[in-house]
Amino acid sequence: MRNGDTICALATPPGIGGIAVVRLSGPDALAIADCCFRGKKRLREVATHTIHYGRFVWGEELVDMVTASVFHAPHSYTGEDTVEFGCHGGVLVAEAVVEALIEAGARLAEPGEFTRRAFLNGKLDLVQVEAVADLIYATSVPGARLAARQLLGGLTQQLRELRQQLVQTAALLELELDFAEEELEFVSRPELLLRLEQGQQWCQRLADSYRAAEILRSGFLVGCVGYPNAGKSSLFNALLQRHRAIVSPIPGTTRDYLEEGLYLQGIPIRLLDTAGVRETDDVVELEGIALAEQAVRQCNVLLIINDVTQGVGHSVGLLQELQHRFPEALCVYVQNKIDLLSDGPLGWDAGSIRVPVFWLSALRGDGIEELRRWLGEQARRSSELSAEVLLSARQARVLREVAQSLAAAREALLHELPGEFVAADLRHAVELLSELTGDTWREDVLNTIFARFCIGK
Amino acid sequence: MRNGDTICALATPPGIGGIAVVRLSGPDALAIADCCFRGKKRLREVATHTIHYGRFVWGEELVDMVTASVFHAPHSYTGEDTVEFGCHGGVLVAEAVVEALIEAGARLAEPGEFTRRAFLNGKLDLVQVEAVADLIYATSVPGARLAARQLLGGLTQQLRELRQQLVQTAALLELELDFAEEELEFVSRPELLLRLEQGQQWCQRLADSYRAAEILRSGFLVGCVGYPNAGKSSLFNALLQRHRAIVSPIPGTTRDYLEEGLYLQGIPIRLLDTAGVRETDDVVELEGIALAEQAVRQCNVLLIINDVTQGVGHSVGLLQELQHRFPEALCVYVQNKIDLLSDGPLGWDAGSIRVPVFWLSALRGDGIEELRRWLGEQARRSSELSAEVLLSARQARVLREVAQSLAAAREALLHELPGEFVAADLRHAVELLSELTGDTWREDVLNTIFARFCIGK
Repeated sequence: MRNGDTICALATPPGIGGIAVVRLSGPDALAIADCCFRGKKRLREVATHTIHYGRFVWGEELVDMVTASVFHAPHSYTGEDTVEFGCHGGVLVAEAVVEALIEAGARLAEPGEFTRRAFLNGKLDLVQVEAVADLIYATSVPGARLAARQLLGGLTQQLRELRQQLVQTAALLELELDFAEEELEFVSRPELLLRLEQGQQWCQRLADSYRAAEILRSGFLVGCVGYPNAGKSSLFNALLQRHRAIVSPIPGTTRDYLEEGLYLQGIPIRLLDTAGVRETDDVVELEGIALAEQAVRQCNVLLIINDVTQGVGHSVGLLQELQHRFPEALCVYVQNKIDLLSDGPLGWDAGSIRVPVFWLSALRGDGIEELRRWLGEQARRSSELSAEVLLSARQARVLREVAQSLAAAREALLHELPGEFVAADLRHAVELLSELTGDTWREDVLNTIFARFCIGK
Repeated sequence: MRNGDTICALATPPGIGGIAVVRLSGPDALAIADCCFRGKKRLREVATHTIHYGRFVWGEELVDMVTASVFHAPHSYTGEDTVEFGCHGGVLVAEAVVEALIEAGARLAEPGEFTRRAFLNGKLDLVQVEAVADLIYATSVPGARLAARQLLGGLTQQLRELRQQLVQTAALLELELDFAEEELEFVSRPELLLRLEQGQQWCQRLADSYRAAEILRSGFLVGCVGYPNAGKSSLFNALLQRHRAIVSPIPGTTRDYLEEGLYLQGIPIRLLDTAGVRETDDVVELEGIALAEQAVRQCNVLLIINDVTQGVGHSVGLLQELQHRFPEALCVYVQNKIDLLSDGPLGWDAGSIRVPVFWLSALRGDGIEELRRWLGEQARRSSELSAEVLLSARQARVLREVAQSLAAAREALLHELPGEFVAADLRHAVELLSELTGDTWREDVLNTIFARFCIGK
């Protein structure tokens, strides 16, 4: 915890642009800024939320003509005195501004340190902090919208209400214990049961929306699997609707899988081409897939690509193996190379494999649009489960624990266990909820959360 | 000229960062901003140079929590009413902000359009406009410093003083013509000659500093040339002090030359490895160099790398050919592979080739530091010729023309040609000077200048 010093960093992305913003925050922000800024007034003397034009100097050397935006504590992003210098874009000027500020007494900020200070100063709760990161890294419009909404603090509000309710209930139950001999009942048992069930369901539903949030956050994962020469790469390219560049032309440097992104119905889709199977030209070994197992395990959809010229049921074994190993993924059987069939698509009773079947020619393009449309539909529908909130992995995990605690409290109540058991479960749920919003927090939890941030945020 | 509408664009570099700034400028900037901004006050009602926090909405959908910085005309970068929205970094949010502003009536700005408006509204002269671009693209600290200084308008001031002087002189000469019959002399001839000579020399000296400015702007160019296996690539890597990644592993995709950057004594150095000679394994053809001729022609220094095990004078023919073809480059003869000489460096009378000679082993590192130091020294000394100003190619060209006009006026005077000839030359110089500062301008000149800018500036 080094909350006492003044930190600075480039807050805009590095690179060529019209403006670069350098942020300076901390108790000495105004004094340090005045060491380098030459305007009509000293920044220490100006009002908060005002902008000033002047020279930014390093020693006596002019670095740039800049604007200085002044924010007085606590009315700034961090809650501390803050000056934001708007300088001409480009890398060198911003670097020089940062270096000059460091020479004048500031310290280079660590990744996420501005936002960490905002949290520690009560400007943002942890749910909002995570929303900030989601907003910055958003890859889909619906995802960005949910993150923005979370910034407003609606979810935090609901979590706090639930906590408040649980605190009160636990207090009443504990009060009953004090009056145990009188056998008073401050809380009606049926009402308590109902309340616990509602709370548990609400938490569980939120937690379940995490997988959908992941789709909005990092994309709907579609894996392409198949025996060599089934036309996997052609299908990959056909779905992308362009010819993918050779990613790894140097033999021996192949990664476990290739990945490409596209958007369908506004949802980011990540296509994975499993390299293990792709690269092997001998008899296919399922070991190949093992290489990419980690990636395949996360897939929302697996496309098993079958070369119809080898027989329409040629890849059914592969399909069954994959269904067995990755039960959470939705498998699809893709009959490829129908252009090579002289008689057109064969009659085939697909009832036995009970998965969607697509007939197409990756090379000629037949049936590709249909598969794209179907994938987009799946992605959209899956992501809509998260229409309410955009949960992080941490939040989902904690919410699941809250649900478990509430379920345990309910169990205890149903089995007419003593009130202290129920109260203990409720207290545990309350602690978890506090951790979620950051009303109480542990340093290691903060470190994990802020590790996602870049310098300058 | 579409100066009447309101334009907007992302002003910070695209990418992941803490803050993204979207700039909105034009007569309707405040009204358009109010369509999307929900804060305590309407932006139309706030004072200039103030910052406001609030929600940015698109329709009723929240896009982000933003700051809105308000600048009233003429006290803004463009000289127009301007609002700058500071939103959370990342690509999607800024895109949504821009799209919402466009839907509310703004137009996406063209590259450099904000700065063009600043020029047209008299906020910047053309010398300053070019300094803005130099500052953004600066690759060296001294270059950035000169550009920043030019922003202050010192060069413009000097150019205007010279112009003023010439205008007066021309006017007096024209007055003499009116009184031709009286044979009056309003300007003393010796004084006029002196003034013209001083002006001419000043312009010429400025124009000559352009090559030095180019070093600060885009780097000191060092070309590596040599027969196959002379150790060119090893020297390239040794100078870079790291092992360069293989740039083009796919046969047939070789570019004309490879380029790497490093800094020596604060000056950017660009090392060129001519591929034509490098790739050919048969008898060397100077044709190989022809491929890279365009690049080699710009080199400040050419390193001719000789494999001493082939004989110390093995590459003298190549050296002479290069000296003949590229007379402006400083050639250096590098005796490489001295580690392979059993007797150590041989006595060799290098007097005949009259270029600096270095003895080194690129592989083992002997003599590399010395060559690096020498190159840094050359780069620094060459760049110092531009210690005063950082001229653009356009400015150098126009200044050279001014010098020629003044020389012509002097010639006319010396040959006692009629005053109207002298006055015409002076008038031409005056026009050129006006074009330089942008006091008069042509649309095509502006287009060339602003083509360097990115969108958002």
